[in-house]
Amino acid sequence: MATYLKELYCPKCDKTYEASRPQNLCECGTPLLVRYDLGRLAKEVNPDVWKGRPEGLWRYRELLPVSQEENMLSLGEGGTPVYSLDKIASEYGLKKLFLKDEGMNPTGSFKARGAAVGVGRAKELGLKALAMPTAGNAGAAWSAYTSRAGIKMVVVMPEDAPLTTQAECVAYGAETYLVRGLISDAGKAVKEACAKYGWFEVATLKEPYRIEGKKTMGLEIWEQFEEDLPSAIIYPTGGGVGIIGMWKAFNELKEMGWLRGPLPKMVAVQAEGCAPIVKAYREGKDKADFFQGAHTVAAGIRVPSALGDFLVLEAVRKSGGTALTVTDDEILAAWSHLAKTEGALICPEGAAAVVAAKKIKEMAVVGADDSVLILNTGAGMKYIELLKEKAKLLETGSLVN
Amino acid sequence: MATYLKELYCPKCDKTYEASRPQNLCECGTPLLVRYDLGRLAKEVNPDVWKGRPEGLWRYRELLPVSQEENMLSLGEGGTPVYSLDKIASEYGLKKLFLKDEGMNPTGSFKARGAAVGVGRAKELGLKALAMPTAGNAGAAWSAYTSRAGIKMVVVMPEDAPLTTQAECVAYGAETYLVRGLISDAGKAVKEACAKYGWFEVATLKEPYRIEGKKTMGLEIWEQFEEDLPSAIIYPTGGGVGIIGMWKAFNELKEMGWLRGPLPKMVAVQAEGCAPIVKAYREGKDKADFFQGAHTVAAGIRVPSALGDFLVLEAVRKSGGTALTVTDDEILAAWSHLAKTEGALICPEGAAAVVAAKKIKEMAVVGADDSVLILNTGAGMKYIELLKEKAKLLETGSLVN
Repeated sequence: MATYLKELYCPKCDKTYEASRPQNLCECGTPLLVRYDLGRLAKEVNPDVWKGRPEGLWRYRELLPVSQEENMLSLGEGGTPVYSLDKIASEYGLKKLFLKDEGMNPTGSFKARGAAVGVGRAKELGLKALAMPTAGNAGAAWSAYTSRAGIKMVVVMPEDAPLTTQAECVAYGAETYLVRGLISDAGKAVKEACAKYGWFEVATLKEPYRIEGKKTMGLEIWEQFEEDLPSAIIYPTGGGVGIIGMWKAFNELKEMGWLRGPLPKMVAVQAEGCAPIVKAYREGKDKADFFQGAHTVAAGIRVPSALGDFLVLEAVRKSGGTALTVTDDEILAAWSHLAKTEGALICPEGAAAVVAAKKIKEMAVVGADDSVLILNTGAGMKYIELLKEKAKLLETGSLVN
Repeated sequence: MATYLKELYCPKCDKTYEASRPQNLCECGTPLLVRYDLGRLAKEVNPDVWKGRPEGLWRYRELLPVSQEENMLSLGEGGTPVYSLDKIASEYGLKKLFLKDEGMNPTGSFKARGAAVGVGRAKELGLKALAMPTAGNAGAAWSAYTSRAGIKMVVVMPEDAPLTTQAECVAYGAETYLVRGLISDAGKAVKEACAKYGWFEVATLKEPYRIEGKKTMGLEIWEQFEEDLPSAIIYPTGGGVGIIGMWKAFNELKEMGWLRGPLPKMVAVQAEGCAPIVKAYREGKDKADFFQGAHTVAAGIRVPSALGDFLVLEAVRKSGGTALTVTDDEILAAWSHLAKTEGALICPEGAAAVVAAKKIKEMAVVGADDSVLILNTGAGMKYIELLKEKAKLLETGSLVN
């Protein structure tokens, strides 16, 4: 297959790196991004070819960094559905509210996209052992794809990471460790161990390919909305790779002339108990400070410091979007309400985005005639430990007596 | 939209019923099936139209019983991926082994298909309250779709049904009850309560539309394999609706002239501790006896008596397939092995089908040049309580010390 992968580049200092060797951060400490030969791609590839391929993220292979078919690891990732939330739209006074359900990925979250591409590329580059800190879902996804690839995986997660994600990592055969503390404490353990044992570190944005997998959410949205993109896209923001990836996708499509209309307003939602990016946004800063005492029921966005903060802030500002917080009480109420009214059991992070849909309407970031798309990042069934209500035992075995 | 739904009919006594009114069983106690005007459908519809629609089961709407668009309830069901298990194929001496992953459905199981169509049709017929016994996943699926439809749902499940499925039913707002005993005990409670309270009973095959949803697995396989169907399809068999549905799909396609090649051998797999259909198959019987003392780790196939047993046996025999058992130890070993070698965390029922792939090769039901398709009916992450291994706490917070 023709490859359009050109090089890696630093979005801060512009230094470039060869993509043919494993790379972590730029010398200047910034995450590296992947550059493609978009001019040649636009000339040689017809996007209708993508639509004719089987559903899933590898249909976009020309705009992905894996060149050999045997490294395009697949467990059926991508091709997630978009459906409408008409009852909630009507409650919030929105014309049209959509949800893209990333829970319908292998390992039940959008992390499968980053892992399919990240591990596939790691395999292509000959890496033998990977290690990462994780809030839970990324660990599960990378454990699944490294199992498929035959690569060793080491995962370190906070002790209070969701039980299902802990069990998944173990089931896939990853070396799975818990630490007392936050994902940042897990990150320290991983960094230290990688230096000592020579494992390749694949923490969020410490390698450039995960973002390319996440980018396919943007490519799918472009395809699913037939180029008429929603007015706003709301994304629960922890490490921020999803929002960075989608924004990269839209801009690559635009540069190739395949996307002509206006781009969506990118909206980053964080929990009030862990909102470094929202704080930076409000203070007009380009980078976020470490958020002290981070806490929220939504484990996936309990990320007190994100390497890609400046890229998230750029996407939010350039797109005319916003960054806002929601409380844990609001998250849990919306979570339960959505399941009971729309039949959608999403993850707590996705529920944060539902709350944000209401708020951006109140804030007039969008109007009553706008369409809004919520990204639900994971399957609700992974979080049943948060449910308070229980089924009722029929002592007599009958509903009638 | 043009509807091709013609009538309901009894596959035993041939009596027909109007489809425009809610129906349970035939007078003779047999499940009713849906008949379409296939001759007219084949003339008026081009199957390419299906391929041009968004992924998911409603693309096959002309061959489904719901006629009004507003009743085509969607949470993104269907359109599940097929991927290959090359390492396992090589271990088992099979040329090609595929897995269709029904875990990537809303509520994490193939039951979403039956619920989308069953609840959609119930809404179309004006039903206000449904009730069912369930081993777990069907309850979760029907709770989700009744929530979306705004219909009351009552679910009764064995006390030892998987905790995740219990929690899902509650989360979707269904009235959820537990009984001490088997699904047959839950069935008694539901039957009695429906008679008393006027709820419509939607237990397996007690209404004719669930099977139409399951049928879409067969339609997708036909589409995904581009009419060149696998030599054998292995299905973990509890109530048996999946195997009945796929067989119905293949035969409807054949009758319309849209499927020309040979049909797959249909293979029913059950657990050694609960194998009524395998027993009947071995004894050359057309119906199965109640299986005493049913027990297996795979809750979804812990069904001691199935109304559709005769239809499963017919599909297995007419297709030249077989019915066989696997032990719980084999299930658990294959379950773990698949996650660790292929990166696929499936459900225990799906793992039973993996074991069966090995056995049908040994039994020469298929040869070394045949392709075999395993149906994984649900997501593995719903069964973490079965996992014995745990993540390891790093007391010092470091992997290096």
